[in-house]
Amino acid sequence: MRPLPVTMPNLDALFWPRSIALIGASPDRTIIRGRIVEAVTLHGFDGPMYAVSRSHEEIGGILCYRSIEALPGPVDLAIVTIPAEHVAASLRVCGKIGVKAAIVISSGFGEERGEAGAARQREIAGIAREFDMAILGPNAEGFLNARMPLAATFSPTVVHVENGLRPEASRARGIAVVSQSGGIGFSFFHRGRPKALNFSFVVSMGNEAGLDAMDVAGYLVEDEETAAVLAFLEGVRAPEKLVRVAERAAGLRKPLIVAKVGRSEAAAAAAASHTASLAGAARAYDAVFRRYGILPGEDQDHMVDVAAGFAFFAGRLPRGTRVGILTPSGGAGAWLADVCEHHGLTVPPLDAETRAAIDRMLPAYGTSRNPVDVTAQVIFTLGYAPALELLARAPGIDAVLVAGSLSHARYIERDMENLIRIGASVDKPVIFCGYTRADPHAVDLLARAGFPCTTSMANAAKAIRAMHEYREFLERREGGRPWLARTGEGGEEAVSPVAGGRHPRSPPTGESLVRSLREAGPVISEHDAKALLSAYGIGVPAGGLAADAGEAVRIASALDGPVAMKVQSEDLPHKTESGGIALGVEGKAAVREAFGRIMENARAFAPDVTIEGVRVERMAGAGVEVIVGVSRDPDFGPMLAVGIGGVFVELLDDVVLSPVPVDAAEAREMLRGLRGRRLLDGVRGAPLADVDALVALLVAVSEFAVSAGGALEALDLNPVIVHPGGQGVSVADAGIVTAAARREV
Amino acid sequence: MRPLPVTMPNLDALFWPRSIALIGASPDRTIIRGRIVEAVTLHGFDGPMYAVSRSHEEIGGILCYRSIEALPGPVDLAIVTIPAEHVAASLRVCGKIGVKAAIVISSGFGEERGEAGAARQREIAGIAREFDMAILGPNAEGFLNARMPLAATFSPTVVHVENGLRPEASRARGIAVVSQSGGIGFSFFHRGRPKALNFSFVVSMGNEAGLDAMDVAGYLVEDEETAAVLAFLEGVRAPEKLVRVAERAAGLRKPLIVAKVGRSEAAAAAAASHTASLAGAARAYDAVFRRYGILPGEDQDHMVDVAAGFAFFAGRLPRGTRVGILTPSGGAGAWLADVCEHHGLTVPPLDAETRAAIDRMLPAYGTSRNPVDVTAQVIFTLGYAPALELLARAPGIDAVLVAGSLSHARYIERDMENLIRIGASVDKPVIFCGYTRADPHAVDLLARAGFPCTTSMANAAKAIRAMHEYREFLERREGGRPWLARTGEGGEEAVSPVAGGRHPRSPPTGESLVRSLREAGPVISEHDAKALLSAYGIGVPAGGLAADAGEAVRIASALDGPVAMKVQSEDLPHKTESGGIALGVEGKAAVREAFGRIMENARAFAPDVTIEGVRVERMAGAGVEVIVGVSRDPDFGPMLAVGIGGVFVELLDDVVLSPVPVDAAEAREMLRGLRGRRLLDGVRGAPLADVDALVALLVAVSEFAVSAGGALEALDLNPVIVHPGGQGVSVADAGIVTAAARREV
Repeated sequence: MRPLPVTMPNLDALFWPRSIALIGASPDRTIIRGRIVEAVTLHGFDGPMYAVSRSHEEIGGILCYRSIEALPGPVDLAIVTIPAEHVAASLRVCGKIGVKAAIVISSGFGEERGEAGAARQREIAGIAREFDMAILGPNAEGFLNARMPLAATFSPTVVHVENGLRPEASRARGIAVVSQSGGIGFSFFHRGRPKALNFSFVVSMGNEAGLDAMDVAGYLVEDEETAAVLAFLEGVRAPEKLVRVAERAAGLRKPLIVAKVGRSEAAAAAAASHTASLAGAARAYDAVFRRYGILPGEDQDHMVDVAAGFAFFAGRLPRGTRVGILTPSGGAGAWLADVCEHHGLTVPPLDAETRAAIDRMLPAYGTSRNPVDVTAQVIFTLGYAPALELLARAPGIDAVLVAGSLSHARYIERDMENLIRIGASVDKPVIFCGYTRADPHAVDLLARAGFPCTTSMANAAKAIRAMHEYREFLERREGGRPWLARTGEGGEEAVSPVAGGRHPRSPPTGESLVRSLREAGPVISEHDAKALLSAYGIGVPAGGLAADAGEAVRIASALDGPVAMKVQSEDLPHKTESGGIALGVEGKAAVREAFGRIMENARAFAPDVTIEGVRVERMAGAGVEVIVGVSRDPDFGPMLAVGIGGVFVELLDDVVLSPVPVDAAEAREMLRGLRGRRLLDGVRGAPLADVDALVALLVAVSEFAVSAGGALEALDLNPVIVHPGGQGVSVADAGIVTAAARREV
Repeated sequence: MRPLPVTMPNLDALFWPRSIALIGASPDRTIIRGRIVEAVTLHGFDGPMYAVSRSHEEIGGILCYRSIEALPGPVDLAIVTIPAEHVAASLRVCGKIGVKAAIVISSGFGEERGEAGAARQREIAGIAREFDMAILGPNAEGFLNARMPLAATFSPTVVHVENGLRPEASRARGIAVVSQSGGIGFSFFHRGRPKALNFSFVVSMGNEAGLDAMDVAGYLVEDEETAAVLAFLEGVRAPEKLVRVAERAAGLRKPLIVAKVGRSEAAAAAAASHTASLAGAARAYDAVFRRYGILPGEDQDHMVDVAAGFAFFAGRLPRGTRVGILTPSGGAGAWLADVCEHHGLTVPPLDAETRAAIDRMLPAYGTSRNPVDVTAQVIFTLGYAPALELLARAPGIDAVLVAGSLSHARYIERDMENLIRIGASVDKPVIFCGYTRADPHAVDLLARAGFPCTTSMANAAKAIRAMHEYREFLERREGGRPWLARTGEGGEEAVSPVAGGRHPRSPPTGESLVRSLREAGPVISEHDAKALLSAYGIGVPAGGLAADAGEAVRIASALDGPVAMKVQSEDLPHKTESGGIALGVEGKAAVREAFGRIMENARAFAPDVTIEGVRVERMAGAGVEVIVGVSRDPDFGPMLAVGIGGVFVELLDDVVLSPVPVDAAEAREMLRGLRGRRLLDGVRGAPLADVDALVALLVAVSEFAVSAGGALEALDLNPVIVHPGGQGVSVADAGIVTAAARREV
């Protein structure tokens, strides 16, 4: 029953304790201290349990001791509900007698305004370190380990749970929850449990004086029964841990489904977790989620329904987006088809053979086209199974949605033998979404057969879409190899969990690059930036820096054809405004004239700045203008950005970000996310752009950013001209901002 | 109890019958014929009921007669469940003995493949006309009038309803449902009834041989208890009726919340209702919905939750989008704030006075900022009411959302007196959205106090947003007068229900315009189109048509400044491709040269076409390029279109449509819907564009389209240059396609 040992052994003592001490227990079940006793005893923890109480001999059948030191045997987990001011002292005693883990339910710590609570919380953090104790909280709502079972929480959703902590029989694998809000964490359980889902763990983090949400998520991902982890996050203390857990989860093919709040100003103020620009922070999280396959959660039912898809069909994720719809109601089928297409799925007509087989069972007013409207009559007489089996086997279909009335269980009950057989043998997801509310008995029966029921049509479609996208993510991640379902999910993982470990890298050039950046000032102007980029394998147009008109003419003559001429100065980042640019200059006289004009304009614009000269370079040919950049996110480090120039970037904010490194497949995925991507495909009579070259540039820039590390604050290639297919890209302008700029702020 | 008489008196006999005959009744409650008897008798219809049966004396307490002619008294409504082949004969007898209305439950009509069923359906349509009988169906699931009550349906959601057809005590006004799918129609009831909502009517249309969905919607809108009408539509047989019903509903300030399916190819094939281009048809519906204030429905729970907002707060729609959030959970508050902002609402900090008052009841770890986190402790001790009352009175807040745990009813039960007082006195919407599932008793209590509970956070936010948008729609519609809540909703309506009736119109020019269009060929080229537009008050640049170079020079000289020159031919709609355009031409020699070149290019491009000459006109100044057009939708007639030129139209399909006529307020609303609208506001250093002139142009084009009626197939003003503020617009190019083109296809 217990999971394999992991790297943090004390979390086993916390989540799978062999013995428990309740510190602060009470017989009064109207207060938190009493509800915890009720929960632990009601849900059948069967190891030794002790209570510490000075006023009682026994509480709820548990023997009481007058002090922690007086406890008669070893204790793995202490559940602490005493007043805040006594918590630290008690935890210290716990540490001394060898208690390995604790949940601090008590409040009165960091969540309060003022220094006293914060000081108490720091003391707990110190005790956790001193005794290597796994501490959850303070101010936590506790946790549920439904596998054991152990209900170490006062949440009414657990204490007063209807129909038990787990469904009697459900083919669903486990769903684990970790939440920085206790109320929200247990709300997933409360909403999801009636869907006959198996919640393996629900963990409320509290103030995170000891363990943080990523420590716990990392532990839950390893749980052998768990197929998906839901997380509700207000702030992430150590973002690099999020990336590490996500990489590990992807290695195990277990999705993280995460709601990260704080996108709105109000939410950020409420969560009080962010100093960085909100929009920027939300974008960075979006990019990290996309890059590491984390599925964003919209609301509780959405997250539970998506998780249910994985819990039932972990090894059978949909290969494509083609959905077969089975319904006894033409209207429900049509509506669901619209909803599917709205969410990026397709509902294609079925193949002729499948149609013929279905037609044989239909009355004159049914249709086998897709949506397959079998009519209520067929459900009354034959049930769902015969048509479902044919639809699930149809060659052109990747997933099946059933839109039926689930207001009662009659037709499902009668059909169970067939449904169980289909559930066990089907190789693609089948999800029920009733147009009525779903009858609890119908839901239980369907779960027993192996099918989830979602709250809404939209959630069913979103679940299929998320499962398909996750499969695509795994395929990219696992190197484009055809994706084979593994039956023993959760076992070995050949792919290195270290970010970037699977990317073949150019020889390490990081040290010298970092040195160059550190030696430079806060801003590196175009000419020097291009030299640096060129040295690290990023192609730039041929050209040189001219200090006088004669040199400009010499450089231009060597380049052959029209040139671009641009003033160079660390203090003039906006060359256009200063009149410091001349494009398409050709011929000695014109070059000489342009040089003079540029210098004159620049000196007039900013008399006091140092001008390094004028860069003269080969004029780039025609193509689609894009911008490529790198900026440092305070949480996630260098973020690669790409956008299509013009209104797309300026008015529509059409930029896709990704943490680095990115490989070619990921770079292509970034381009797919651009609204203006059709410009690269050659609309309006324009030729197809050289997307391969752009992808290679993105990968090279990503490697540059990785090598530069913290020494690089920002890189801006704007514009990059993407020429027609086969003709490459031109980095027309470039600029670098170094870490020195950060220090200067 | 009965509604005021309306224009279709026979619908009263259908929906409020004084007596009923069950034709085809059976005592077998496992079949449809028996379930109908069960439903009618169970839910207490108290007028005379008769059954027609040859094999029984009495069924479920209802006396049986051997034939329709043998019935002992007058019958308002016949409920017909006999086999299809006997239906027409029975209905004819019904007609003869004076039965006023019928529901045909029987199937075997138009829904079947083949001619026999279609012929039977045509016969029923004929009987409806012959006897002026209100016939619902055939192939209908019947209807529920929960006010009477009368359950004339076999839907299991009604027959086996839990806790009665209506809530015992709920401040919700009525919600009526009309659906072209019986399953979907009753699913609104099944999902919404546990929310303590009052469903006044649920009507399943069946095949619509007699009445159609718009006839019924028009009746339901008039029902005095009904505050909102939900409709599920697969196809609309007479689109002009939709517009008429929507206008009437808007006059009564009762929203229609409509799901119109058939956007996807699969759904359209399933509904088999549309031959027109799908995307086009969906767009036209979107435009009609926006123009007439119809609220689009996303799924069942969404539609029910939005309707609930209106059912509880019909006279108290939110003035703005500022939401106050009350919660005992910081996490839930933050999440809900994000959800609100995602759906276009704001969550501003509260005013200082309200904050101070709330702060007085908060512990050190609560916050009054907004979201207002009162902490679980305050809910335990004080309940929701004290903070809710302060928040609902806060001056800067337009609506309140409460995100609490609703897993039990304890704190609500204790607080009822205060909640009832707040519910009765609050002047803005207050909606509860529990993060847990909502306990049924809690929902009932909140409804009694006057507050709805939504399924999800998103639905709560969407309901507030929809209610605010509907209020804005009413304000525009009612002429921008400050919008005053009327207590006696459903009473007189001063605004004419006729589409366009409230628009002040220019003198009728329709007849001569229609004549001009009918006399023209299928295509009217730029020069003639501009002449026609000009004659009808739409300004175009000064210019003339030159047949030779000399004339071109004369026209250009008179215009003063550079000119645009464009070849004119009905057979050359794409002037650019033929090399038939020269822009910014200035000076006699240049004009002469351009004329020659244009004619030469055009003749080379298309040797056989007739060229009318070259239009020489004043060159338009700089500005933002937009396109303005009119096209005829097969369902809704002329649709006005506006889009921003360039990538917005070409790549992003950024066009907003509206049925005509539009007035200035509606034209402004159209521009607000453009993604590229910021270009009109003067981004990137550009001046603010002359939006007033563009609005005037849209109104003028709308009037032109109304006057032209069916004689106009399409009008294309592309581009229109919108000059800086105060400098007007220039219709740079124009083309007209007449009805002749349609006939030629």
